[in-house]
Amino acid sequence: MEGVRGYFLSFEGGEGTGKSTQVNLLRHRLEELDIASMTTREPGGTEIGRHVREILLHTKDESMRLSPMSEALLFGLDRFEHLQKVIRPALEKGKWVLCDRFADSTLAYQGYVLGGDVRDIEALNALVVGKTQPDLTFVLDIAAEKSLARAHERHEESSYYDDKMIEFHEKIRAAFLAIAKDNPERCIVIDTDAPVEKVAMRIETTCRERLGVEFS
Amino acid sequence: MEGVRGYFLSFEGGEGTGKSTQVNLLRHRLEELDIASMTTREPGGTEIGRHVREILLHTKDESMRLSPMSEALLFGLDRFEHLQKVIRPALEKGKWVLCDRFADSTLAYQGYVLGGDVRDIEALNALVVGKTQPDLTFVLDIAAEKSLARAHERHEESSYYDDKMIEFHEKIRAAFLAIAKDNPERCIVIDTDAPVEKVAMRIETTCRERLGVEFS
Repeated sequence: MEGVRGYFLSFEGGEGTGKSTQVNLLRHRLEELDIASMTTREPGGTEIGRHVREILLHTKDESMRLSPMSEALLFGLDRFEHLQKVIRPALEKGKWVLCDRFADSTLAYQGYVLGGDVRDIEALNALVVGKTQPDLTFVLDIAAEKSLARAHERHEESSYYDDKMIEFHEKIRAAFLAIAKDNPERCIVIDTDAPVEKVAMRIETTCRERLGVEFS
Repeated sequence: MEGVRGYFLSFEGGEGTGKSTQVNLLRHRLEELDIASMTTREPGGTEIGRHVREILLHTKDESMRLSPMSEALLFGLDRFEHLQKVIRPALEKGKWVLCDRFADSTLAYQGYVLGGDVRDIEALNALVVGKTQPDLTFVLDIAAEKSLARAHERHEESSYYDDKMIEFHEKIRAAFLAIAKDNPERCIVIDTDAPVEKVAMRIETTCRERLGVEFS
């Protein structure tokens, strides 16, 4: 594989849709096939990610809250560094990069759901990402009630959730589906209301069909 | 003046070109004329400015240094909040806003001098600033040797400076002159190699000629 650029795959979707589970399952499958890969996530992966998380934490209160465009700029800063210091170097070494959330998350949350200007955030994402668009984006999709139940289970929180939370999660879901529809050459919607192994198989099948990689 | 939007004036130029002195002189002149105004500066003016300064401080070391585009995104975040929480509300109340450094500083430093992509940073600035372009931008201009001498005097540092520092300051100067040339309808180059009162008079004259304001 030397000299050949690795594939860049992003995994998108709301909380509890199964992103990190599927990232890890694909990583292990690639290991079995002796395909070098790495997993990473946003925000994070670089030193600046720590500052970004700190700012988001400090501005959580309603009175301090950043505007959606400012949050998009903050994620953009983290993403630019992440691309430059982690993602591109790995791809250039021939590694596959499996990224848990990428630019579509900013467009979905800060744009579609929180009310930032969708066209401005798209333009910002394009400036930040440049030529390093993911080769494939898996949009993991499941009904809000089910993703909320999963997210709560994992965080060991109370299983209580109300209509407002379901409404928010349905908005996020609709945003990701709209983004997938706008980018059919890059995005594949994966129904994750199925056993994890079956979902993993769908992802493998997509890799085979779209990237021509044999998982045998 | 009620109901009438104030004028937005930015002051640009390298260190030691006289920006803060001229901002304050114009502020006092406007006070004498009973024209409501405020002075502000970048980065800063909002809560997030403190975080921005902290990140810039933490990444000062060569090994931690952010790429120019990341720095531009960081200044963009500060600027978006500054516009939304400070500049636009003041303008809407009819106040003149005198701003010590604005978007042109990001284009000059992170773009022209530090090597970021000039077109990308221009596009980023346009996204961040939106319709709130300054009505006038004063580009304060003086030879690098003289601005360095002034900056050192003010900071009470040693008066030592070498060829490399002069070269850097000349690059900054050339960048601002290039930006002024590209934006003749907005930017006015003001030669600041003159007594401060004389420079202030040139700025007043420009306000009269360009904005039709009488300083009598």
